[in-house]
Amino acid sequence: MCISNKMPALASLFSLLSLRGLLPPMALLLETVFILLFTFFTEYEDPAVMKNIAQTDLYTEFQDVNVMVILGFGFLATFLVRYGFSGSGFSLLVAALSVQWALLLDGFLFAFRHGKIRVGVRSLATANVCAASALISMGAVLGKTNPVQLMVMALLEVTGFMTHRWILHIFLSDHPTQDHPIQPIMLLHVFGAFFGLMVSWVLNRPGLEHRHEKDRTDRRTGLFATVGALFLWMFWPSFNSVLLDHEDKLTAVSSTYLSLATSTVASFLVSAVTSPRGKMNMIHIQNASLAGGVAVGVAISVADVPWVAMVIGLSAGLVSSLGFRYLKPHLQVVFKCHDTCGVLSVHGLPGILGWAFFILIRTLSPPNAQRGPSRLGNSPGQFSFILLVTLSLSLSLGALTGLLMKWSLWRAPQDRKCFDDQAYWEFQHLAERK
Amino acid sequence: MCISNKMPALASLFSLLSLRGLLPPMALLLETVFILLFTFFTEYEDPAVMKNIAQTDLYTEFQDVNVMVILGFGFLATFLVRYGFSGSGFSLLVAALSVQWALLLDGFLFAFRHGKIRVGVRSLATANVCAASALISMGAVLGKTNPVQLMVMALLEVTGFMTHRWILHIFLSDHPTQDHPIQPIMLLHVFGAFFGLMVSWVLNRPGLEHRHEKDRTDRRTGLFATVGALFLWMFWPSFNSVLLDHEDKLTAVSSTYLSLATSTVASFLVSAVTSPRGKMNMIHIQNASLAGGVAVGVAISVADVPWVAMVIGLSAGLVSSLGFRYLKPHLQVVFKCHDTCGVLSVHGLPGILGWAFFILIRTLSPPNAQRGPSRLGNSPGQFSFILLVTLSLSLSLGALTGLLMKWSLWRAPQDRKCFDDQAYWEFQHLAERK
Amino acid sequence: MCISNKMPALASLFSLLSLRGLLPPMALLLETVFILLFTFFTEYEDPAVMKNIAQTDLYTEFQDVNVMVILGFGFLATFLVRYGFSGSGFSLLVAALSVQWALLLDGFLFAFRHGKIRVGVRSLATANVCAASALISMGAVLGKTNPVQLMVMALLEVTGFMTHRWILHIFLSDHPTQDHPIQPIMLLHVFGAFFGLMVSWVLNRPGLEHRHEKDRTDRRTGLFATVGALFLWMFWPSFNSVLLDHEDKLTAVSSTYLSLATSTVASFLVSAVTSPRGKMNMIHIQNASLAGGVAVGVAISVADVPWVAMVIGLSAGLVSSLGFRYLKPHLQVVFKCHDTCGVLSVHGLPGILGWAFFILIRTLSPPNAQRGPSRLGNSPGQFSFILLVTLSLSLSLGALTGLLMKWSLWRAPQDRKCFDDQAYWEFQHLAERK
Repeated sequence: MCISNKMPALASLFSLLSLRGLLPPMALLLETVFILLFTFFTEYEDPAVMKNIAQTDLYTEFQDVNVMVILGFGFLATFLVRYGFSGSGFSLLVAALSVQWALLLDGFLFAFRHGKIRVGVRSLATANVCAASALISMGAVLGKTNPVQLMVMALLEVTGFMTHRWILHIFLSDHPTQDHPIQPIMLLHVFGAFFGLMVSWVLNRPGLEHRHEKDRTDRRTGLFATVGALFLWMFWPSFNSVLLDHEDKLTAVSSTYLSLATSTVASFLVSAVTSPRGKMNMIHIQNASLAGGVAVGVAISVADVPWVAMVIGLSAGLVSSLGFRYLKPHLQVVFKCHDTCGVLSVHGLPGILGWAFFILIRTLSPPNAQRGPSRLGNSPGQFSFILLVTLSLSLSLGALTGLLMKWSLWRAPQDRKCFDDQAYWEFQHLAERK
Repeated sequence: MCISNKMPALASLFSLLSLRGLLPPMALLLETVFILLFTFFTEYEDPAVMKNIAQTDLYTEFQDVNVMVILGFGFLATFLVRYGFSGSGFSLLVAALSVQWALLLDGFLFAFRHGKIRVGVRSLATANVCAASALISMGAVLGKTNPVQLMVMALLEVTGFMTHRWILHIFLSDHPTQDHPIQPIMLLHVFGAFFGLMVSWVLNRPGLEHRHEKDRTDRRTGLFATVGALFLWMFWPSFNSVLLDHEDKLTAVSSTYLSLATSTVASFLVSAVTSPRGKMNMIHIQNASLAGGVAVGVAISVADVPWVAMVIGLSAGLVSSLGFRYLKPHLQVVFKCHDTCGVLSVHGLPGILGWAFFILIRTLSPPNAQRGPSRLGNSPGQFSFILLVTLSLSLSLGALTGLLMKWSLWRAPQDRKCFDDQAYWEFQHLAERK
Repeated sequence: MCISNKMPALASLFSLLSLRGLLPPMALLLETVFILLFTFFTEYEDPAVMKNIAQTDLYTEFQDVNVMVILGFGFLATFLVRYGFSGSGFSLLVAALSVQWALLLDGFLFAFRHGKIRVGVRSLATANVCAASALISMGAVLGKTNPVQLMVMALLEVTGFMTHRWILHIFLSDHPTQDHPIQPIMLLHVFGAFFGLMVSWVLNRPGLEHRHEKDRTDRRTGLFATVGALFLWMFWPSFNSVLLDHEDKLTAVSSTYLSLATSTVASFLVSAVTSPRGKMNMIHIQNASLAGGVAVGVAISVADVPWVAMVIGLSAGLVSSLGFRYLKPHLQVVFKCHDTCGVLSVHGLPGILGWAFFILIRTLSPPNAQRGPSRLGNSPGQFSFILLVTLSLSLSLGALTGLLMKWSLWRAPQDRKCFDDQAYWEFQHLAERK
């Protein structure tokens, strides 16, 4: 609102436009820009090079991550009773755009050599992992934003996340061409969650302060969301291992699996014990089961015995389901921040918990020189500082993005049209019958 | 009808038979014949041989293609509001039969050595790709045919497609044992789509000329179809790369991914801009998103820089969603050709577009001697001739198949029972209640 | 009931407890014990070792098996009209616990060296395969038991199954450290099915003797169950090959695929021919299609030409769908044994059929010294004896487990609350509206 007041002429011009006047030109503009950038700055990786680096491993894992980004996040977002088309459809749109943009940014910032970015399965995997952060943020504002707002948010989020990675990269490594000391997987859950929460807080408006009657799940959409949740569960081991070196990959797979198994049990435990009649809540199970994957992903380089991964998973499952039961309702009432998919409890808190474990274990048992991101030094303070940087950047960039998205130009959905597919999708028979 | 008039005695004999009298004997006969043929003419590939040829790659990709054929096409076909069991169930039946038949035909025509066909992951992958053409054709007649008609159509389609490949193989390669110069993936979309459309045109009957009230989607079946569409989307990179040589595989994966990403954005763009109120149509998104995979699959050998794949994907997405919005309704009214799943727009037009790009790029930059199907020569005329052959064969074989399927022996469903599972499936409680 | 009578004081104490008083403490206790055992007795496999043994193959196949266990079995169990959350949710809980327990037991019994179990992708794959036996048993009692009973059953089932494997291992191999002569895959379907049937028989109570009105499927849940069934179908080749040596893997993949294809056709055939009006039953298709995978899995080491796998698949499909049509109703009426998911027809009978084929083929063509489990000798009697041991152990351990589960402490659901999610899950809006 603050921005639109400053340019009333422009705003009144654009206010004539419906979604039809916004989405198509924006999509066309973005694709034109992307294709031009790809034309001048990219080429495929040389197949001969790829042959040597055990690309097959990577291809399999890329496919798994691809499944998580396209199907997993998308269908986890179908839990709302009347928002299934939007949940899965807009996720697909956001993922398609974010991956293209992440490919370019990752190339420019980290792998720009001789004026070219090399596009291959490896860079696609990195771009997919980074695009996931945009899908996480999207979870916080789902149902209350239109697809154009989501596109804007996703592009800014990916830009912010890549810049954040680049800043850490510059400050933490001695030589800019060195491998990243901090894996993107350690940052993306915390960054994505708090970015999204901040956007949601800025976008909050009086009409949405009470629980919206369509902001709920039912038997049907609950099962569709379970499909999404299980695909995230099943392929999380690949997500946590795809960007690691071959040696560490298989240990990461086992750690992630064990952590997911224990956080699943923890989610059932908490969901039953915190309900007056011992009934479980499917939304808790769908989401808190995944918290183990989030937390252990952050601490993957220090989880070198199975029980550590299991303890991390159990704690993450407990924290996450407690967050769903007690924190999510209060967040809305006290902080005026509505978190549709509960990204604070699925990604935010377990991500911070993973950092806590990471710092704790690194402090207790410093790594030897050969393994792990030892260039960072071992001081807990240095790691805590990185976490603080991540939190501050995500909150401040989220606030800026939220302000931009509040601009009336974007024509956010009216309160009564929130959480409803009918605002965006044609339903064949409805039109004919009525 | 024309055939049944010629043999009234036979027709009246068979007209006593319901589906119960047709499907089981036909299934039994086919399986008996298949098992006999497998007994005399097949053996497993020698595992020792397979060890050397990086079979692991192939196994992963075979699984991906398997997912597309069994789940992807099947669930994309569940979009009809009361035809979900038939869409997924008949697809499974047709796939199971077509793959067995394609294994045999592919072996007899292309890999018959010392009286034996070698069955292995490689031949299963080829058979799956070819069986996909039958599933494409099925999309045009879905809801208006019974499973026996679909079985007949699938077997004839696979036979026609294999014969078509064999004709090209004989005419285009100098030595019959040489590798195929034209990949099956370049032919199957165009062949499958126009074969199916021709069948649908021949089967057209007055009772189906108006839009059938059950020929629509809803919230529930729309989401099931989205599951199918997303699985096709995610594993299309494997579909386009599975039959290529190891060197070209990974480039094909990246090209297909980029093409799908841009066609997805294009489908949202067109769906929103062509709707009076800027609303999108889920059917357009589900289908036109995949058009990029179709088009780039045809041109995969010439898409050697990323932006080419993106331009192909964007154009294919535009053409496909425009086809859904404007061509599909007219096709029914003007040409009396009802296309249930819109295969013209998903496979037909994008396939032709892919050929246009292929011919254009080959003309502009002729390949050097080492790479690609250079035995074909580089003349655009020669490629256009191949496309013409594909179109003519698919249309003429489709017409013949349609005539055969029109035979009253098969007892096609009555108009009012079209697009309805109740004609073919037991519903437990309905029987008990009523 | 017999047990609870003996300790009335304890029972009356616990009878105050609802599910809320049982599930959380039990989950907490189990996870504490598991984590302690993992702490003292496990370590990750050395990545350097794993590098040499073509781990990539294994990783891909592990993921496929993971998909079957987490999604496949879980969603196949969503077919009940009001039990979808429980079907998929409890499967996830049971799988998460069973895999942890199977990892430990498999390690202690078969790979305990220098006081440590090595956890890696290989042991996770084995644990997943063994956990599948618990999910099979669960199918027999689904809807009539609460999650605590299921947890108890799963842990005892896995314990029984592992002990069974260990007994065979000790008696059949000359040196205890030798490779297992009988693959777990040959035992688990028969063991799981008859264990579950026996539990169901013991738990039978008068109130459930008539068909429960919620014990049925509908259009919506039928499609969800189809998703599960198709994922089992697609990844069954990996399930049957994951624990084999590299040489035998790819032949096993082809055999399983061909067997599934023929059993699919057989299931359509039988379902149509046994229905008065030629209508098919989706439950038959979903389940009997998979029978080929079960049967060929048992006989995988003797299916060395394609037609054998196809004949096994066809027979298994016939037996399984006949079992669904005629045996399942009689089992309930005559033997007072209600089999919710029809595990007798999907796993029990096809498993025995697979053994029959295995014994028959081994008798007709004894293997040469190098290949297969030749240490067993070739006598049909010896194999029949193994099958008998499997059957006796599964039935007797199932009976004991059933007696334990009958204890009123566990508070099995009341008759009218069976097959209903509302007994276990919160439904947001129901509470608010009413």
